[in-house]
Amino acid sequence: MALSIGVDVGGTKIAAGVVDDDGAVLKTIRRDSPATSQQAIIETIISVASSLKADFPEAETVGIGAAGFVSSDRSTIAHGTNLDWTGLDLGEAISQGVGLPVVVENDANAFGWAEVRFGAARGKANALIVAIGTGLGGAIVVDGRLVRGAAGFAAEIGHINVVPDGRPCGCGQRGCLERYSAGTALGVNGWELARFRPDYAARIIELSGGDSNSISGKAVTAAAREGDPAALECYAQLTHWLAIGLADLCAVLDPEVIVIAGGLAEAGDILLEPTREAFTRFLTAGRARPAIPIVLAEGGQAAGLVGAADLARQA
Amino acid sequence: MALSIGVDVGGTKIAAGVVDDDGAVLKTIRRDSPATSQQAIIETIISVASSLKADFPEAETVGIGAAGFVSSDRSTIAHGTNLDWTGLDLGEAISQGVGLPVVVENDANAFGWAEVRFGAARGKANALIVAIGTGLGGAIVVDGRLVRGAAGFAAEIGHINVVPDGRPCGCGQRGCLERYSAGTALGVNGWELARFRPDYAARIIELSGGDSNSISGKAVTAAAREGDPAALECYAQLTHWLAIGLADLCAVLDPEVIVIAGGLAEAGDILLEPTREAFTRFLTAGRARPAIPIVLAEGGQAAGLVGAADLARQA
Amino acid sequence: MALSIGVDVGGTKIAAGVVDDDGAVLKTIRRDSPATSQQAIIETIISVASSLKADFPEAETVGIGAAGFVSSDRSTIAHGTNLDWTGLDLGEAISQGVGLPVVVENDANAFGWAEVRFGAARGKANALIVAIGTGLGGAIVVDGRLVRGAAGFAAEIGHINVVPDGRPCGCGQRGCLERYSAGTALGVNGWELARFRPDYAARIIELSGGDSNSISGKAVTAAAREGDPAALECYAQLTHWLAIGLADLCAVLDPEVIVIAGGLAEAGDILLEPTREAFTRFLTAGRARPAIPIVLAEGGQAAGLVGAADLARQA
Amino acid sequence: MALSIGVDVGGTKIAAGVVDDDGAVLKTIRRDSPATSQQAIIETIISVASSLKADFPEAETVGIGAAGFVSSDRSTIAHGTNLDWTGLDLGEAISQGVGLPVVVENDANAFGWAEVRFGAARGKANALIVAIGTGLGGAIVVDGRLVRGAAGFAAEIGHINVVPDGRPCGCGQRGCLERYSAGTALGVNGWELARFRPDYAARIIELSGGDSNSISGKAVTAAAREGDPAALECYAQLTHWLAIGLADLCAVLDPEVIVIAGGLAEAGDILLEPTREAFTRFLTAGRARPAIPIVLAEGGQAAGLVGAADLARQA
Repeated sequence: MALSIGVDVGGTKIAAGVVDDDGAVLKTIRRDSPATSQQAIIETIISVASSLKADFPEAETVGIGAAGFVSSDRSTIAHGTNLDWTGLDLGEAISQGVGLPVVVENDANAFGWAEVRFGAARGKANALIVAIGTGLGGAIVVDGRLVRGAAGFAAEIGHINVVPDGRPCGCGQRGCLERYSAGTALGVNGWELARFRPDYAARIIELSGGDSNSISGKAVTAAAREGDPAALECYAQLTHWLAIGLADLCAVLDPEVIVIAGGLAEAGDILLEPTREAFTRFLTAGRARPAIPIVLAEGGQAAGLVGAADLARQA
Repeated sequence: MALSIGVDVGGTKIAAGVVDDDGAVLKTIRRDSPATSQQAIIETIISVASSLKADFPEAETVGIGAAGFVSSDRSTIAHGTNLDWTGLDLGEAISQGVGLPVVVENDANAFGWAEVRFGAARGKANALIVAIGTGLGGAIVVDGRLVRGAAGFAAEIGHINVVPDGRPCGCGQRGCLERYSAGTALGVNGWELARFRPDYAARIIELSGGDSNSISGKAVTAAAREGDPAALECYAQLTHWLAIGLADLCAVLDPEVIVIAGGLAEAGDILLEPTREAFTRFLTAGRARPAIPIVLAEGGQAAGLVGAADLARQA
Repeated sequence: MALSIGVDVGGTKIAAGVVDDDGAVLKTIRRDSPATSQQAIIETIISVASSLKADFPEAETVGIGAAGFVSSDRSTIAHGTNLDWTGLDLGEAISQGVGLPVVVENDANAFGWAEVRFGAARGKANALIVAIGTGLGGAIVVDGRLVRGAAGFAAEIGHINVVPDGRPCGCGQRGCLERYSAGTALGVNGWELARFRPDYAARIIELSGGDSNSISGKAVTAAAREGDPAALECYAQLTHWLAIGLADLCAVLDPEVIVIAGGLAEAGDILLEPTREAFTRFLTAGRARPAIPIVLAEGGQAAGLVGAADLARQA
Repeated sequence: MALSIGVDVGGTKIAAGVVDDDGAVLKTIRRDSPATSQQAIIETIISVASSLKADFPEAETVGIGAAGFVSSDRSTIAHGTNLDWTGLDLGEAISQGVGLPVVVENDANAFGWAEVRFGAARGKANALIVAIGTGLGGAIVVDGRLVRGAAGFAAEIGHINVVPDGRPCGCGQRGCLERYSAGTALGVNGWELARFRPDYAARIIELSGGDSNSISGKAVTAAAREGDPAALECYAQLTHWLAIGLADLCAVLDPEVIVIAGGLAEAGDILLEPTREAFTRFLTAGRARPAIPIVLAEGGQAAGLVGAADLARQA
């Protein structure tokens, strides 16, 4: 049994754990992420990984899941997103500090890999994992391997265009899938109704503490659970575009399964049922091909570090 | 030097050839495709392959490129498109007739593979090959391997949605990329202008033999070469959507290069220049990543059989 | 009882008649339109009007309905459309030839006026008449008076934009209502299906004589009458945009009634029912205001000359 | 010289004045609007009108401009919008209290009428006045008369559809012109950029007091005046749709002039220049017809009461 240390570097938390080859987590350490300083984050990662290595000296590798685009050396950050890590050889820095070989992976890829190895896409050689939270990202597995792209920029599935000349996106484009189907989109859908049709959106506003300038996706979900028509309209919009985006991805990739993860996955059937219905309508050649199920992720909170650990072990 | 026989089964022609491991074609046979009968096509394939085998007894494999979705056994047709071959074990049938191992591949994949091995994407591990003819299809290479999908339905890049509720497509959906960026789309763009703005489209109509009901993409291209504004508008429409589609595919796949093939590629810079310009504008994270060149295919008419032969040799 | 002579100058026919103040036509003359020559048309109009005047010497006025934009003097053609009459003082030419005062009116206005005076909008001070044929035009009556606009260019209702950057229009714009809701749009909808989904559109093609390049609106209507799904989809598209266009016009004009005329009106409920359903959904403030019925025109073939005659009498 | 009393009933202020037949205001009274009570507003109107009548006993009529749809009797509120006045005979109530004949008019109509009689559309028989503030409303003058529609619901120009399935509108529809071209739309455009592209929208956020949840149209305008690219993009969006809406209205109405009023008019050339440029591109038959100038309103703050007074005098 080979042990591997996985580290999930998030915007607010750093989670590390020792993972066995069945994906079981033997020990976990969580720390706040010292977001202001690159050096402080590196030191925190070294500290937690070294501590775990001390407890489990048989651990042979370290896998790190981090936001940003990772170069094909699986060590250097090609382009940082939340953190200004562009050009940093993160793997080398951690490896020197911990004394173990290190593999760096994009965090969505790490998360998605855990689903393919131990979760909802277990045993599937071709899978699409979609994480819907503040943004919309994902991981693509083709023939049992993660698709990273030539420069580590693959699987940016939140940035396929779905609405010509639509809502502005952080990436500089307009009409990206993320702007219509991420959790923030749910809030925007709700905010638009609250702003211009306050009577209709009354329940959403109420569940947002009465402030129509602060509509959150969570309030919309809560109202949708009660059957509120305005909230369900927000979901109908979101799932319409999500289904089109998933159908686009299936036209390109033809996976065996689509796994939905991230904060919005907690909405469950409110999200899944209209998505499935619309996806079936929009999938090209849908009658000729095997059905592609859309299911919830199973990995939970630790999936990021589990996937990173497993990728390091397999490197 | 290992020789392999490649067969490209098209709608009107069957082309077969003996291919060496540098992609050179040592001998070629072309026959009309007896399109009316599945059995007749199989017999023709066996006949030409056997003939080539007789001339080059050292040939060890047969690769067949055929329209349709090919199962992961790389032998059975999962779903025929032009021909009603659904469920046929084409590889087995040909292998029995010729007495060599056979690999069956989707024709666009075979074609694209030739570009990656010997053509414009030579030496690239991650490439996107886009064939723009009557339809719009393609091949995707990730980490040096063709992406076929779980059931052989991958790389249906002509069927990503670009225009919500747009033109109807043969696949049953509306707004597919193929309906806006294939050669037929060029003809439709021209036909719409010829129908409703005949003065403006006068040169296109003239080059179509004076019949505004029979506007072809070729007439539009010829007029565009002369600088005709209506024809250039048809191209501007086509390349706008093509660029959005390519940008979508790069968000998902992050290739090193995009190779444009097919009949429309003959338009050259009339097609490429506005496509490149718009692609640069629409590519997500375009400033952070390496540039992705858009180039013309090099393989020519024999690329389909060369790719099929090479895939069989490597199987 | 005051008699007036009405003349309807169409692209292929000139129809003239003597009309009493109840809108009854006492005598009619029809002639082929000598479309090639402006002078020949003027002479034909003078000939038929003079002949009717000889039979009914008590006729006091001549009203002419003609395609094109008519100046506020109600005599000069501000801008010809089918015929190059721009700048011609048509009223003066006819008045000199016939020896009666002449009023010139846009043909759609003349037609619409007959509906308001004697037809489906009888007794309504505010009405919208929509003629759906090859193109989509209309007449607007506000407070009992035709809306002609400052320069005679009003009521060009076929050229409001409904689809951003949509189908090209003869007017030089894209996405005009006329391109989605005229009879030709029905043919285009059918042609798109016939071209790219021939199996689905088989009945439409069959009713078009088997030629998928010559799909007519009539064939689509005939198929829709049989319940053909592809033809009904063509109608669903057309009525969706028509309803949005009508809702736009009602937001601006608030009529008491909408009268549908023109060749497509013959489709009856196939056209009206989905239009009404969608119009109700799209009408702003629909719950606060009186319902606006959508009804068929009653005037028939002679409505153009009846309206022209009545307008001349009232001048 | 006939004097008339005009009263402009706004959401927060009631302004009344004595107006002569040149549109000069001889005396003005302003009061806060007691918005909570219908009866209190009526009493306030009676009080200010009576006070002015006492000062100018020769005043013969009272004109009232009020939000909402006014019946064709020009006295009863057919449908209240801000206030729940539906069915109220406002004219009768005020007439009894003041002892003068009263005419009630929609406030946008009253405002627009002042422009036609004494302002930027002076002497024009056909004019379109567009008020762009929180919402987008207007007045339409055809042949020298206001267009009120069959039930007083005409000139709801903010509710023509410009974006299919677009932003939700208070009227219950989606994609209304008002949602893309009113002052609030400017704020929404800015908010979307501030939310998803905060770096790009930094100056807009700064001018909004640093709070990206409280982006106002005013902050966007201020940034646009400085040449801020993000703010100019917000204006480019707004003026694109505004121009399409104006082009639609001109296709229907063919006015001699378009007058822009309301809070957004204060942006001046930042608003007007891109609107004019796009309007020229989108106007149907633009080359055949006289140019339609787009100009700023001249009436200023008192235009509402001036127009109401004049309409009453002419009744």
